[in-house]
Amino acid sequence: MAATANASALPSWNEGAAKSQILDFVARVTRQGGTDFVAPAERIAAFDNDGTLWSEQPMQVQVFFLIARVKELAEKDATVKVRQPFKALLELDLKTLMGLGKQALLELVFTTHAGMTEEEFDPIAREWLAKSKHPKFGRLFKHCTFQPQLDLLNFLRQNGFKTYIVSGGGIDFMRACAEEIYGIPREQVIGSSNKLRFEMKEDRAALMKLAELNSFDDREAKPQNIALHVGRRPILAFGNSDGDLPMLRYTKTGKGPRMALLLQHDDTEREVAYDREFRLSPLNEGLEQAAAYGITVVSMKRDWNVVFPTAS
Amino acid sequence: MAATANASALPSWNEGAAKSQILDFVARVTRQGGTDFVAPAERIAAFDNDGTLWSEQPMQVQVFFLIARVKELAEKDATVKVRQPFKALLELDLKTLMGLGKQALLELVFTTHAGMTEEEFDPIAREWLAKSKHPKFGRLFKHCTFQPQLDLLNFLRQNGFKTYIVSGGGIDFMRACAEEIYGIPREQVIGSSNKLRFEMKEDRAALMKLAELNSFDDREAKPQNIALHVGRRPILAFGNSDGDLPMLRYTKTGKGPRMALLLQHDDTEREVAYDREFRLSPLNEGLEQAAAYGITVVSMKRDWNVVFPTAS
Repeated sequence: MAATANASALPSWNEGAAKSQILDFVARVTRQGGTDFVAPAERIAAFDNDGTLWSEQPMQVQVFFLIARVKELAEKDATVKVRQPFKALLELDLKTLMGLGKQALLELVFTTHAGMTEEEFDPIAREWLAKSKHPKFGRLFKHCTFQPQLDLLNFLRQNGFKTYIVSGGGIDFMRACAEEIYGIPREQVIGSSNKLRFEMKEDRAALMKLAELNSFDDREAKPQNIALHVGRRPILAFGNSDGDLPMLRYTKTGKGPRMALLLQHDDTEREVAYDREFRLSPLNEGLEQAAAYGITVVSMKRDWNVVFPTAS
Repeated sequence: MAATANASALPSWNEGAAKSQILDFVARVTRQGGTDFVAPAERIAAFDNDGTLWSEQPMQVQVFFLIARVKELAEKDATVKVRQPFKALLELDLKTLMGLGKQALLELVFTTHAGMTEEEFDPIAREWLAKSKHPKFGRLFKHCTFQPQLDLLNFLRQNGFKTYIVSGGGIDFMRACAEEIYGIPREQVIGSSNKLRFEMKEDRAALMKLAELNSFDDREAKPQNIALHVGRRPILAFGNSDGDLPMLRYTKTGKGPRMALLLQHDDTEREVAYDREFRLSPLNEGLEQAAAYGITVVSMKRDWNVVFPTAS
């Protein structure tokens, strides 16, 4: 039996329907000669990042990074402090920020990255991530990952899966930390992207980041970008908001064995309880239609015996 | 010494400057503790496809596929035969076709693919590739690959490189054969792409191919798409036309050890001799500036002891 063979798998997951379904699914797709066997090359697993692999409350990590960048701008130019939306950012005025919406925030992020190459951007993001702490949890942002998801990523890879991030977050920001915190290499990170300009600068070729949006990797863009980058329909996908539904349904409705999961944030004590009311990225249709869509809802409170990694 | 250790490597390459440079480069980047050592994760090799990995004469393989698709259209609609550019395609009027240019031909290709999903397209391309032969070489198109490049791809992978295709060809067409003929998995194929529309059809999510161009993966778009898909600057790149120069220069001008190569088609007996005069994809600046750009020019006639695989 799958559950027996994998008795030590997913230690941070409580026994229950969600854990059993995952163990059973992985056992089926890896059983050589079985009717549900899936060749390793086709074992693609796609994970949303913000709110699925790490905490996105009170705001996505990248918004905190944006604030740090705007603070630097404000030091050079005092007028920044009184101009919107910079003022709201600097004052951590969440209501105004959330009113902007996810795409406008992302475009603001890309504005502050413009004018440097992707290679110049990378160490800036790494340095910020190396020292910046979450205001509520008191730990480094990069340690606000969810231990049960780290266990799941490892378990999937041990079973021949290739794990991808498919997120609305900026692709270069996630690439600066995905290998270190999730063991996911840069080329397996798909995200929102800005346009790039090819330049020869003193005989050195460079790709300059532009403010202009290339792809806002949310909703329908998630399966579209999976097709572009991977060229295979995932057999497992995990999200936490309605923005993930097209990816989950694309995953779930292919031929053969498939699994789609949604994380419900219902744990006030250990993280935050939210779903429908998170304006930037609500979970509404997903909860209402989970059964109809064949999606497994994972409750943080019920299904996880630990939330954050203990060592950090 | 590198050349000694790799005495059996690249059997289809003649002894000479090109082979020595490749063997020396690979030895340096893989020598643990050496000053030029490159971590395996950063050993990215990018290969153009048409004219670099397989023959592109008298026309790119995908143009022959396009002709087959148009023939099918003409069977259903007789007016197709008298309409341009379909008429030129059906009559194999190369002069008219080349006059269209590479991007217009590609857009024509995407027009004939529109209205089906990427998953429906894949078996159509595979079936055509399984039976269609090159008019001059008399072998299947998928056996018009270059044996020395197959040796090189294998040698690089044996040395921890991740091999990518970065080509102006349609991404789905190349994905239908890249694993079988080059050992390159679908997710390591980057190419020109059409836009996709996400649809729910009878409760099944599908991505519909549209005629509209998403990316024409030529010239500056090659390094831009490498940054988008891979997020790492390659350390080795191989092309055969001026359309590859931005990718070769992006590769060659990064920090640390780097290698860029251009294949010169100068072998009338075994393949075709062409460079500047191939209107669709000329090699001009590349030959003139190779020394200045630090690019190694590989001569098919001088550097390869065999061109096509013998078994096929």
